[in-house]
Amino acid sequence: MKVIDGGITSAKGFYAAGLYAGIKKKKKDIAIIYTKDIANMAGTFTTNNVKAAPVLWNQKLINEFGQGHAIVVNSGVANACTGEIGVVNNKSMAGFVASGLNIDINSVYVASTGVIGKQLPMDIIEEGVKNLIPTLKDDRDSAIDAAEAIMTTDTYKKEIAVEIEIQGKTVTIGAIAKGSGMIHPNMATMLGFITTDCAISKEMIKEVLSSSVSDSYNMVSVDGDTSTNDMVLMMANGLAGNVEITEKNDDYYTFLDALNYINIHLSKAIAADGEGATKLLEINVEGAKTKEQAVALAKSVVGSSLVKTAIYGEDANWGRIICAMGYADTIFNPDDVTVYFETEIGSIKIVENGMGTGYSEEEATAILGDKYIKLNIFLQEGSEKATAWGCDLSYDYVKINADYRT
Amino acid sequence: MKVIDGGITSAKGFYAAGLYAGIKKKKKDIAIIYTKDIANMAGTFTTNNVKAAPVLWNQKLINEFGQGHAIVVNSGVANACTGEIGVVNNKSMAGFVASGLNIDINSVYVASTGVIGKQLPMDIIEEGVKNLIPTLKDDRDSAIDAAEAIMTTDTYKKEIAVEIEIQGKTVTIGAIAKGSGMIHPNMATMLGFITTDCAISKEMIKEVLSSSVSDSYNMVSVDGDTSTNDMVLMMANGLAGNVEITEKNDDYYTFLDALNYINIHLSKAIAADGEGATKLLEINVEGAKTKEQAVALAKSVVGSSLVKTAIYGEDANWGRIICAMGYADTIFNPDDVTVYFETEIGSIKIVENGMGTGYSEEEATAILGDKYIKLNIFLQEGSEKATAWGCDLSYDYVKINADYRT
Repeated sequence: MKVIDGGITSAKGFYAAGLYAGIKKKKKDIAIIYTKDIANMAGTFTTNNVKAAPVLWNQKLINEFGQGHAIVVNSGVANACTGEIGVVNNKSMAGFVASGLNIDINSVYVASTGVIGKQLPMDIIEEGVKNLIPTLKDDRDSAIDAAEAIMTTDTYKKEIAVEIEIQGKTVTIGAIAKGSGMIHPNMATMLGFITTDCAISKEMIKEVLSSSVSDSYNMVSVDGDTSTNDMVLMMANGLAGNVEITEKNDDYYTFLDALNYINIHLSKAIAADGEGATKLLEINVEGAKTKEQAVALAKSVVGSSLVKTAIYGEDANWGRIICAMGYADTIFNPDDVTVYFETEIGSIKIVENGMGTGYSEEEATAILGDKYIKLNIFLQEGSEKATAWGCDLSYDYVKINADYRT
Repeated sequence: MKVIDGGITSAKGFYAAGLYAGIKKKKKDIAIIYTKDIANMAGTFTTNNVKAAPVLWNQKLINEFGQGHAIVVNSGVANACTGEIGVVNNKSMAGFVASGLNIDINSVYVASTGVIGKQLPMDIIEEGVKNLIPTLKDDRDSAIDAAEAIMTTDTYKKEIAVEIEIQGKTVTIGAIAKGSGMIHPNMATMLGFITTDCAISKEMIKEVLSSSVSDSYNMVSVDGDTSTNDMVLMMANGLAGNVEITEKNDDYYTFLDALNYINIHLSKAIAADGEGATKLLEINVEGAKTKEQAVALAKSVVGSSLVKTAIYGEDANWGRIICAMGYADTIFNPDDVTVYFETEIGSIKIVENGMGTGYSEEEATAILGDKYIKLNIFLQEGSEKATAWGCDLSYDYVKINADYRT
């Protein structure tokens, strides 16, 4: 696998465009991703019981067709809690793209991110789509425009592309994502879009995306709040010319590994760019009885406000880690727990057999001075493992989320 | 029911004492509650998988005997994650009290709160118990001493007493509690102790406590972290001389109402005294399909970091409320949701049919300027309801929990 300088247009046949239409105050706010050759598609969507109009639209398209030509994304307004009008507006937005590109409306997927409870400004969106379509290109700049247009208050764009070989053919995967910068309210939505020229069946694209999302986006927690608009969409147009992946063979796993690399890269970028984050926190749990246990423990620790503030304060407060593991909904033997802190600066064992090791506080604080903190937890229950990502909880988190008006 | 000026010694036959032994730096840190006449007892304990030594000890006593004479409590050290030594120390602590009062060790319950991972200073505790026993009194000052000795960094003591009539006899219930002030790490433990002279059977005291705790302490969330040491213990020595409550008759419900009043009063005091709290937040959910649904929704909203920071910022951010309801693990129709903010200043409807009402932001902000914020949520799923309490998330929460060393 080779990481290349690229993004959403790196795979053969994918075009993109992004521009400022006027939904937000001044930054780019609308983007289209497009492939002339129809793509097999898969999607994973928020588990929030309150789903934004575009989420419901895409779920229907994925279930009924599992294919598509385009994704249109706006930032600034989430089109969530907008009732029947929101549903109609969402369909109109897909319709503008379908007319402009002369494709079936049922091949146009929609994503929105921004303020909850506000209706989409349809004139601006219609005009925006009209201006976007002639600028669709498969070059690097267009990919960057799209990556920027889906941002809300992310402090940097998030994109990546990789190449792999599948039976002598070069297969490319590119992706963009946005996370949870939150200066304006309710913008914590996580969106991810992945394009590939790999030939892969509808059944397998669904399988591979779902498997990869479980180990990446679903393991990210900034503040535990799951948005009404979260989604990941993946398009595969088959232009790489490889023998289509139709079962879980070696090619499938080669592709899955590359997809995991992409999604974990973007998940870490999202976690590190969480509201007010000063440190990226990675929780590795090993030796669990089941995968579910490893996931439950990693998520409980990464979501603990007490652990997150301790990391912000560069304090090796192991009691809070054990406590957060304890209230995860899973039974383990606390007397078997070992915990290390690990950064580029060094590694230190702070818990052994469920008790403090009498480590040097000075050394621990020095290690926690780094920006990328790994917390490695070992159980003796079995051989399953999981990794979760999050960030510290800082003054700025409170500032951003309490004082957004000022 | 009459609220009286009192606490843990208000009910007939209950003695208390509290003093500074030297476990903490300078504040009172050890207390005993005692009744000569043996009391029927019930307890509810943390669901954390990692349980402190005193929790395990008390669970065993409650299950095997369901009776007792005394509770000894220390603050400063939690005796959690302390291995076999912690278990032995806990038993010794009970033993000091048993010897001093000449009672069975199996009638002495223990509670500890403070730093995780540190062993109890047994010399100090032995000396402390020795000094406490001669000072046990049933007066108001001793009750206050005990209320103060169980505090960690609570900013005020929490106690209450009420009188009720049961078939012509005056029955008194008194209680003390401590919450989650957290200048030092890992002190978020919630402890509650209740004494009553009511005659009530072992079966019914278990029933009445469990029922009341579900609607009070279990509905409090400061930061979602459940401690290794949380517990509520209740003692009933029967000295009021009422006909013993042995079934769920009118007397039972009279007693339950009074107990609920006490526990809800203390729960609100704990929530309002959460780390860095500037506002008490009360979430009322009505019209739910089941009690479980009402509880799940109320807890999800009160635990949302985004809702908590919005309340701190006095921002009527209804999108975050709907979003937090949405990710609770229960299905409801978001289009039927109505939400009001209510304080002493006034009441305002901010959501109707799942959408914003176009309320005046100025009016909403004025209403949120108060210190006790009720968020009233109405569904149209059924007729069940629940209430949860919490607090806002402020700069001081981060400061207290990140910078405890400075």
